[in-house]
Amino acid sequence: MNKEKIILGIDPGTTIMGFGLIKVEGKKMQFLQLNELHLKKFGDHYTKLKLIFERTIELIETYYPDEIAIEAPFYGKNVQSMLKLGRAQGVAMAAGLSRQVPITEYSPKKIKMAITGNGNASKEQVAKMLQSLLNLKELPKNLDATDGLAAAVCHFFNEGRPNAGKSYSGWSAFVKQNQDRLK
Amino acid sequence: MNKEKIILGIDPGTTIMGFGLIKVEGKKMQFLQLNELHLKKFGDHYTKLKLIFERTIELIETYYPDEIAIEAPFYGKNVQSMLKLGRAQGVAMAAGLSRQVPITEYSPKKIKMAITGNGNASKEQVAKMLQSLLNLKELPKNLDATDGLAAAVCHFFNEGRPNAGKSYSGWSAFVKQNQDRLK
Repeated sequence: MNKEKIILGIDPGTTIMGFGLIKVEGKKMQFLQLNELHLKKFGDHYTKLKLIFERTIELIETYYPDEIAIEAPFYGKNVQSMLKLGRAQGVAMAAGLSRQVPITEYSPKKIKMAITGNGNASKEQVAKMLQSLLNLKELPKNLDATDGLAAAVCHFFNEGRPNAGKSYSGWSAFVKQNQDRLK
Repeated sequence: MNKEKIILGIDPGTTIMGFGLIKVEGKKMQFLQLNELHLKKFGDHYTKLKLIFERTIELIETYYPDEIAIEAPFYGKNVQSMLKLGRAQGVAMAAGLSRQVPITEYSPKKIKMAITGNGNASKEQVAKMLQSLLNLKELPKNLDATDGLAAAVCHFFNEGRPNAGKSYSGWSAFVKQNQDRLK
């Protein structure tokens, strides 16, 4: 019953979108990809949203992930930055929704905890642990890129544990049960 | 030069999404549709996002709007509600982005000002003015539904006025000018 599965992890920020892919089977986990999309150079907020949406669609259509894990902070310094962050999360989620890929979101603290055992771990600690867990030859210069990968690994570690993240994978079941509410 | 054009106006909230469509030609404006999507009954935030995304795509594929106008508040009571609102806006925008429809966003104040001449007008005042401007036989019971329509009419009134709203219609031009930045 240990079906092979691909997990796409995304950290959709408004300056950098980090993303990573792993293939899992049973308790084994294999590294596939790790990268980042630099958005800072695009001054226009809307251009950033378009790029996040398109890159996520591209990743889905290239790797056909079975599940998506998103790093989603629930708090921020002000309402303006949260609105922007919400939009970035929204377009990434829309990409998953439009391709019927179940999405689970995790707070940064939950991800750090899952990877290192410490919810307040530094980016370096998370990156080092990912390097060890996935036998990565080298780490990217910019550690923001590892945040997406960390979300994917966190999702793998939390599988089968109900209420681990805010999961929405029950959409299909929900639709079946609520046909009359969807008119 | 007065090409006929269809404008889709959306007010993507997390409890109700209001939307309206108008056809414009020169200085003439014709009412096409006005409706609302009730989201409150769906407890799951993610289900709401999926419904906003799908309904927007459906509207685009049914009416082929040339432009989309979005009501987008920039302030809110707290970071949590702004994150949710940002996600709702994000998925609606992603629908437009995925179908290459230019989007312009307007603040609620700007919309009220464009329709009634008063940035602090009540929902009733905006609705009455829309009824008069578009010869609507009756108004919907729930005035939230008119917010989307108001955004569309505001967009029409503001056309040709640079910096009227936060417009992103320059995306195609931007892409042509910035091929090297989009790798």
